[in-house]
Amino acid sequence: MINKLVGKIKKTQAPIVVGLDPAMKFVPKHIQQKAFEEFGETAKGAAEAIWQFNKAIVDAVCDLIPAVKPQIAMYEQFGVEGLIAFQKTVEYCKQKDLVVIGDVKRGDIGSTSEAYAAGHLGHVMVGSTVCRGFDEDFATVNPYLGSDGVKPFIKVCQEEKKGIFVLVKTSNPSSGELQDRLVKEDKEDGKARPVYEIVGEQVARWGEECMGDSYSYVGAVVGATYPEQGRILRDIMPKTYILVPGYGAQGGKGADLVHFFNEDGLGAIVNSSRGIIAAYQQEQYAKYGAENFADASRAAVLAMKEDIAQALAARG
Amino acid sequence: MINKLVGKIKKTQAPIVVGLDPAMKFVPKHIQQKAFEEFGETAKGAAEAIWQFNKAIVDAVCDLIPAVKPQIAMYEQFGVEGLIAFQKTVEYCKQKDLVVIGDVKRGDIGSTSEAYAAGHLGHVMVGSTVCRGFDEDFATVNPYLGSDGVKPFIKVCQEEKKGIFVLVKTSNPSSGELQDRLVKEDKEDGKARPVYEIVGEQVARWGEECMGDSYSYVGAVVGATYPEQGRILRDIMPKTYILVPGYGAQGGKGADLVHFFNEDGLGAIVNSSRGIIAAYQQEQYAKYGAENFADASRAAVLAMKEDIAQALAARG
Repeated sequence: MINKLVGKIKKTQAPIVVGLDPAMKFVPKHIQQKAFEEFGETAKGAAEAIWQFNKAIVDAVCDLIPAVKPQIAMYEQFGVEGLIAFQKTVEYCKQKDLVVIGDVKRGDIGSTSEAYAAGHLGHVMVGSTVCRGFDEDFATVNPYLGSDGVKPFIKVCQEEKKGIFVLVKTSNPSSGELQDRLVKEDKEDGKARPVYEIVGEQVARWGEECMGDSYSYVGAVVGATYPEQGRILRDIMPKTYILVPGYGAQGGKGADLVHFFNEDGLGAIVNSSRGIIAAYQQEQYAKYGAENFADASRAAVLAMKEDIAQALAARG
Repeated sequence: MINKLVGKIKKTQAPIVVGLDPAMKFVPKHIQQKAFEEFGETAKGAAEAIWQFNKAIVDAVCDLIPAVKPQIAMYEQFGVEGLIAFQKTVEYCKQKDLVVIGDVKRGDIGSTSEAYAAGHLGHVMVGSTVCRGFDEDFATVNPYLGSDGVKPFIKVCQEEKKGIFVLVKTSNPSSGELQDRLVKEDKEDGKARPVYEIVGEQVARWGEECMGDSYSYVGAVVGATYPEQGRILRDIMPKTYILVPGYGAQGGKGADLVHFFNEDGLGAIVNSSRGIIAAYQQEQYAKYGAENFADASRAAVLAMKEDIAQALAARG
């Protein structure tokens, strides 16, 4: 699946993933109203609204981008009905030949991570039937529990030709509280290094055993909001694909992104969620109006593609 | 909710939570067969089997214990159908007046943690309708993203009178890879301290603002498999309830648990999953047979209660 992702990035010339994080405040009123007329002001109505919203955006941008990243929390908040919308979204995007990165940030002790891995990337056997749960192509994984919590995902990736992105340095303001802590080490140089470097090294090691053609299918999450750390982590993890959240609404800019990429122009894929799916709510794209929200999203994808291309060209 | 939990622990004299982690290998064949006859060898059939399994165990033990802890991964592996079984389990346990700890280990950037908190502990508004997702009483939370990722949960707990348990030192063998790393600090004593202590201090600070009558509703997860760390963390977090996994099948014993408790005999609640729900598969309880698996679970709860009581009495 990492080969497919890299191939699609090359083909679209867009190292971009659209974050399908459909908070209700992003969903145009006319879509909400139609869903509520059919299913009432209920979780089912909300789920229908976010599904229709997603579908229209995917239809409008799927030829431009390699991948989408639905954030499961935005669906899970509506309980089971929301998760049905998540599942429909995953299926639909796969039909459109998009690579689907399930942003689920799961991670637990070994036997439990096995179950998460089965539910999101693999399958379970029920009697003699193969049952697939959400069946994303990639999933994001939290490393707090150590190897035990990550290896079951890697095992399923090997079996199913899928991939993961392990949280290394997250995009949020307080990510440093734990991730930037300086760790004492017994290395020769005696230098203390931040937790994110330690985790980055671990990701690189896990990834060595899990190579696609040119990159590993054990990737990393490093926020666009921390370009300096991105530069360091790029060096520590040369064969690791980096999923870069935090572009756009969270403050990351094209120029911040260049250090996340390798010389080959590959190695990173940048996520934008609000900046794309709620583009119609921004002044810049207001001319489209709420009715044409999907066209606004398409324009925002094209602008993001251009922003990143210019930044990469400018680094010379 | 922390007051309810403490009250029920006092009443039952059992600082025990039963982990409802119904892997299919624990579900007796006769229950699986009945479910498959009705719904086929499908995810729906599997979900029905685990729901019937849970229900029988809950019926058999609910008068003995204060709380249950369903591990959502064991349901999520069956996709939407599994999550319907999770929801039914949560609802049923609440009807039985058990405190429900959703072992979900969620945690993300701020806006995303808000959605998780709404889905598991709070509610969302759909138009003018209040919609509740899974509506557990407590949830477990991963601290890797720092305060941003935890505070949205705390906010919902304040509004809804619920609680969380933050992962501090987990029970699995590799938990030390990250959690035991020694962090350099600018404190006066200049001593390096492990990550779990840093996180433990953070939990204690978050908890100070969130007090029930005697304990905070911001709790911590510390594995029974690490009794020495449990002793240290008990001191660092005196008003924090500690959820202690790892008893029984993972290797923790009654004598390992004493340091997790305060002098008042409170402050900790010990989880056992396999050891209770699959008791009938152990030699010790084999006499019950698979048909009477729930009676075996009841016997295992009584034995666990006795084991902990003896250990606490022996500490003098």
